[in-house]
Amino acid sequence: MNQLRVGMIGYKFMGKAHSNAYRSLPMFFPNALKPEMKAICGRNASAVQEAADQLGWNESITDWRELIQREDIDLIDINAPSDAHKEIAIAAAKAGKHIFCEKPLALTLADAREMLQAAEDAGVRHMVGFNYRFSPAVRLAKKLVDSGRLGQIYHFRAWFLQDWIMDPQFPLVWRLQKEVAGSGSHGDLGAHLIDLAHYLVGDMQEVIGMSETFIKERPIASEMTGLSAKGSGDGPKGKVTVDDATLFLTRFENGALGSFEATRFAAGHRSTNAFEINGSLGSVKFDFERMNELEVYFTSDEEDVQGFRRVLATDPVHDYMEAWWPPGHTIGFEHTFIHEVLELSQAIAEGRQPVPSFEDGVKCQAVLEAVDKSIEERRWVSLSEM
Amino acid sequence: MNQLRVGMIGYKFMGKAHSNAYRSLPMFFPNALKPEMKAICGRNASAVQEAADQLGWNESITDWRELIQREDIDLIDINAPSDAHKEIAIAAAKAGKHIFCEKPLALTLADAREMLQAAEDAGVRHMVGFNYRFSPAVRLAKKLVDSGRLGQIYHFRAWFLQDWIMDPQFPLVWRLQKEVAGSGSHGDLGAHLIDLAHYLVGDMQEVIGMSETFIKERPIASEMTGLSAKGSGDGPKGKVTVDDATLFLTRFENGALGSFEATRFAAGHRSTNAFEINGSLGSVKFDFERMNELEVYFTSDEEDVQGFRRVLATDPVHDYMEAWWPPGHTIGFEHTFIHEVLELSQAIAEGRQPVPSFEDGVKCQAVLEAVDKSIEERRWVSLSEM
Amino acid sequence: MNQLRVGMIGYKFMGKAHSNAYRSLPMFFPNALKPEMKAICGRNASAVQEAADQLGWNESITDWRELIQREDIDLIDINAPSDAHKEIAIAAAKAGKHIFCEKPLALTLADAREMLQAAEDAGVRHMVGFNYRFSPAVRLAKKLVDSGRLGQIYHFRAWFLQDWIMDPQFPLVWRLQKEVAGSGSHGDLGAHLIDLAHYLVGDMQEVIGMSETFIKERPIASEMTGLSAKGSGDGPKGKVTVDDATLFLTRFENGALGSFEATRFAAGHRSTNAFEINGSLGSVKFDFERMNELEVYFTSDEEDVQGFRRVLATDPVHDYMEAWWPPGHTIGFEHTFIHEVLELSQAIAEGRQPVPSFEDGVKCQAVLEAVDKSIEERRWVSLSEM
Amino acid sequence: MNQLRVGMIGYKFMGKAHSNAYRSLPMFFPNALKPEMKAICGRNASAVQEAADQLGWNESITDWRELIQREDIDLIDINAPSDAHKEIAIAAAKAGKHIFCEKPLALTLADAREMLQAAEDAGVRHMVGFNYRFSPAVRLAKKLVDSGRLGQIYHFRAWFLQDWIMDPQFPLVWRLQKEVAGSGSHGDLGAHLIDLAHYLVGDMQEVIGMSETFIKERPIASEMTGLSAKGSGDGPKGKVTVDDATLFLTRFENGALGSFEATRFAAGHRSTNAFEINGSLGSVKFDFERMNELEVYFTSDEEDVQGFRRVLATDPVHDYMEAWWPPGHTIGFEHTFIHEVLELSQAIAEGRQPVPSFEDGVKCQAVLEAVDKSIEERRWVSLSEM
Repeated sequence: MNQLRVGMIGYKFMGKAHSNAYRSLPMFFPNALKPEMKAICGRNASAVQEAADQLGWNESITDWRELIQREDIDLIDINAPSDAHKEIAIAAAKAGKHIFCEKPLALTLADAREMLQAAEDAGVRHMVGFNYRFSPAVRLAKKLVDSGRLGQIYHFRAWFLQDWIMDPQFPLVWRLQKEVAGSGSHGDLGAHLIDLAHYLVGDMQEVIGMSETFIKERPIASEMTGLSAKGSGDGPKGKVTVDDATLFLTRFENGALGSFEATRFAAGHRSTNAFEINGSLGSVKFDFERMNELEVYFTSDEEDVQGFRRVLATDPVHDYMEAWWPPGHTIGFEHTFIHEVLELSQAIAEGRQPVPSFEDGVKCQAVLEAVDKSIEERRWVSLSEM
Repeated sequence: MNQLRVGMIGYKFMGKAHSNAYRSLPMFFPNALKPEMKAICGRNASAVQEAADQLGWNESITDWRELIQREDIDLIDINAPSDAHKEIAIAAAKAGKHIFCEKPLALTLADAREMLQAAEDAGVRHMVGFNYRFSPAVRLAKKLVDSGRLGQIYHFRAWFLQDWIMDPQFPLVWRLQKEVAGSGSHGDLGAHLIDLAHYLVGDMQEVIGMSETFIKERPIASEMTGLSAKGSGDGPKGKVTVDDATLFLTRFENGALGSFEATRFAAGHRSTNAFEINGSLGSVKFDFERMNELEVYFTSDEEDVQGFRRVLATDPVHDYMEAWWPPGHTIGFEHTFIHEVLELSQAIAEGRQPVPSFEDGVKCQAVLEAVDKSIEERRWVSLSEM
Repeated sequence: MNQLRVGMIGYKFMGKAHSNAYRSLPMFFPNALKPEMKAICGRNASAVQEAADQLGWNESITDWRELIQREDIDLIDINAPSDAHKEIAIAAAKAGKHIFCEKPLALTLADAREMLQAAEDAGVRHMVGFNYRFSPAVRLAKKLVDSGRLGQIYHFRAWFLQDWIMDPQFPLVWRLQKEVAGSGSHGDLGAHLIDLAHYLVGDMQEVIGMSETFIKERPIASEMTGLSAKGSGDGPKGKVTVDDATLFLTRFENGALGSFEATRFAAGHRSTNAFEINGSLGSVKFDFERMNELEVYFTSDEEDVQGFRRVLATDPVHDYMEAWWPPGHTIGFEHTFIHEVLELSQAIAEGRQPVPSFEDGVKCQAVLEAVDKSIEERRWVSLSEM
Repeated sequence: MNQLRVGMIGYKFMGKAHSNAYRSLPMFFPNALKPEMKAICGRNASAVQEAADQLGWNESITDWRELIQREDIDLIDINAPSDAHKEIAIAAAKAGKHIFCEKPLALTLADAREMLQAAEDAGVRHMVGFNYRFSPAVRLAKKLVDSGRLGQIYHFRAWFLQDWIMDPQFPLVWRLQKEVAGSGSHGDLGAHLIDLAHYLVGDMQEVIGMSETFIKERPIASEMTGLSAKGSGDGPKGKVTVDDATLFLTRFENGALGSFEATRFAAGHRSTNAFEINGSLGSVKFDFERMNELEVYFTSDEEDVQGFRRVLATDPVHDYMEAWWPPGHTIGFEHTFIHEVLELSQAIAEGRQPVPSFEDGVKCQAVLEAVDKSIEERRWVSLSEM
């Protein structure tokens, strides 16, 4: 009973990150439940078998319905494209499996709520994949907020800036199709910022947004792999049905003001996932491209030496870091998933809900959808409407 | 006729910056019209005489009406509190004087328009004090935009973050009183961002904003000097009638998306006046706390060495810098005013309007007011409504 | 024959990093020889068995002589304390095993040369653990130098700054004892800088150095684990017999000037392993605390936008990165070991020497010892003397 | 008697910086003696008259001997090329004038000592132009050292990196001729670092250095202006007789270790004048390209938020800054000279020696020469030998 038997659906970018997390957990966090990588599931039999071999799964399987019925599996990990989340999650819950689902939880708020309801009805554990919460530097920010060391929060501003689809010849991958992805930069990148805001500042009262699709048609992709794809500039084009960029303003319930921007058209930003919090007693700044660092300012510092400190969150005092390397030896993107799986594994062992759970997924979805509504209706939308 | 005879109204923070600019111009830009600092005007006779002595004015005077009638003055420089701008500027125009007015041009858009009309009717030159346009690094950004080296502009985001009134005991100075200042962070800080947006990206189509006054009452100031003041925490309090922070979103006429934030409650930010522009071919980033630098990114750079360049805009190729020191030897805040006065002096010599003129002041005021309206009416406001 | 059967001696800090590398290689570099983690060796039977369990080794063993005689092992990995390297390596070579030895290769140059000779005589592959060569950003620097894009190299300056033993109560761990560690900051940190200099710039002609032990006595450690230890401030003290800091100057054979500093007394520097290269056509800067970045400057850039570029070496064009995550998603310290093991595995598969080999270890040792000699004799020491 | 009547010899780069300082002092530091800019002196009558007009001097003069004899002058400011310093300074002292001399004080230590002796014999005030001491951020570093907040100093490392003569076609200006300039990067750039080391850490015990002239011949300059010059690539070439780069190591009398590098061949560094100090209780970092900032680290900070603080030394608490602009509004290179002249003016008014005086100039010269000797004789040279 000190094992966690996992079946995973999906094997691209996120599938690899999750597999690595399961595989690494026992080496660095030996006291956690040990994940047993039972089976990986995908539609293409040869591709999923190849993934099983490379990623270290005991076996591969092509029918997810079969997977969730297996007796020898405790946890279903869902990182298939977003449009598949709902059906699988509900079925898995009904089969009594714990669920770890990538974000965004679902294509719509209604779907997300159904998923949460199903999980609660079934009494299973449920987690949604907001991995950035698990950066040690973000945990430090959380600790500073929660302990009151930043005082009353006045401002939260956040950006998730990328540039990978700026070339108009970049093809129409599934992430650019509304019916599969739900939304574009908003649900893919903005969702992370929204979750961080919930985590660090609290609930939102109302929102108003703005979005744009800068490149309206793109070559149809002939083949897709992970985030990239191959297409021909001369071939047929299809309509991009998601946003390239979405911005919104928010008022938090605690009175703080928030500003959010998610875009895939910020030249030079490979993946700037950044936020800043200003409180009455101090501020913090974070940028995932320098994920081991948190900049911290305190108004109480002596007046001649006040300034943002560049804290390298790699000391043993920082969450998770005692398990890794000596101070100053940094970790990377994939480590957020290892820490995420640690939380999942600890929660299951302790018989409690992991955090973030489907509730957090629902809450994020509510904001995503409120922003969409505010864009469509060109007005402030209260979260209470959702 | 190679002189520019100046009379100045106001002698605090901005009065000092302008005086230094007039005084420094001939040493660094000897080909420009030479400012003759004829008279400085303020209500307090002894204080203004002291200012005259320190700042290098030939004489002091207490009645601005007298000043603007003097035959030996070509230019009236207005840097008194904002509520005095309109009356003085219109009278100066009628007296046939050129006018250099600090920002914000007026308390309302209607006032600003009257001022512009008066100046145009009188055929005088008029300039508004958006000094940040005159940072060499900002000029470089402008050059990159105008020459097409950044391509089509997708995003403009800007922040003006300060923290000087975060202490609830900081007194109720004139900048916190709507009837004198017009607005708070919005008109003081946001106005600069708006002007930079107009300068660098172009006109706006519509806006929607949000604002807050975090500290609603403050000790009444017993004495004010420049930006600071003395007050007693035990004394009577008065109501703060301006915004502590204002944020807004905008859609530019060229399709770019804009995000703006002005606040005086960002702990650790003494004066972060920063923007970023993302275009289809590149990006630039600027922060006035490091005003000699512009970060520049080009999508056309070789693929293995793409990255934001930290350009130190101190080479002879950069605007104004040949007049200063060797490359790598930086300039500071006050230099923006020297360059501003250079433009004013050159425009007068060449018989053309300086830039930015009252037209730019009006345009800025229109955005400020549209944002205010959007906040009051909780809806998007088109600039065409203004 | 597509497997690499490994036996490892040592199981602390480096043992963990190596284990993780063997374990991770097949997932991210599936075409490489697959390491089979056969046995791990240490003197303390229960501790090494615990390590075996946690780090994923098939079995544990306490006698390294037994280990190197096993038929089912191809490669001996030596990461025991430095004073054990020589004997093990020579015995392993005689037993016909390939050898991967942590740095510094030996306590003395003579020992290092014996080890190299033994490996060459036995015809086995040999590698020394200069892992920083395997940072993608360092590889980019190498590529820029080798391709001539930086021109003729004029300067190399490097620092390895740490602060973990600044507290005078920090105990006398083995790394502070000359007879076990060989030297202090010089051999531990400086060795990495010397190897990077050899890799990036070339051979040195002569050196002169200076060193200091700031804290001359420390509490004797009652128990040691990895880099840290427990000791009592009240207990007996012992003499620190290694350097706390060593600096030296060098002239490279190609005419470049070099400056090196290694210290464990740089407050605030957890592990700043940084260098800069200046050439006639450009410069690069690297700091391991931001290991995903390389700053790059080219004299050929257009004159108005010259500046150091912050290149995030996470694009597919950068060495190793296609195997990892999308651009902008960073890697950490441990990845250098995975790439190092990739080189080892590829070299063995291809029947060639891996790089860096024992030859590089010897070359590094020669510089370390030349610097020591220059300190002792207070004069420039030529590498040809060594 | 509240005036300081100045006669200045030299009117290029430094002449402009000094003129601006004299001219600006009364506006920003009204309590200081007011400099009266009596006469400026140079050999070319029309050029020096043009300088007088532009820089604001009452008159121009071509014979410095005449200048120093004038009754209406209190202070002689020497910023002519270095080979002229000695003769003028000694004559000025004999004429009873206070002396402000640019660095390096002289071409040789013997000359510098003669100058100091002459000034002391005459009982005049004497100052040497180490302007970087007068950056507010450097003053903050000094304050932190002197107050013990950094503890015992272990390390000082400094670089002055420029790139303005990297082009082999750059002509043979006077700064590249030993008989006029004394030395190259060593005396021009290194001298500043040495003075900062004396100011911040204390006296040196012994040094050893290394230098190089990378480009050994250059086109003879047909015309020189300030730092730059015109020459023809096809014309005759002359020998460069000074160092392009000089590095040295030092041991301070207080036991700290020092490392210095001055070069004009660091591509991308327009003027990186930077140092770092590591003490037992904290560290500071400074780079003149960001001269308003000091990075500060304290070991006593709470363990979860330790990191270098970016202190913007623009608050009223920072030296000189109350006289300038509000917090966050930066100053530039030229301000160091204004603060320097403030010290000079205050010292004269108070009847004390200004700091740095010729004694500091002598001390710097001793180190410069000891380093030269160490290079020539290839050995450590003790300062006591000098």
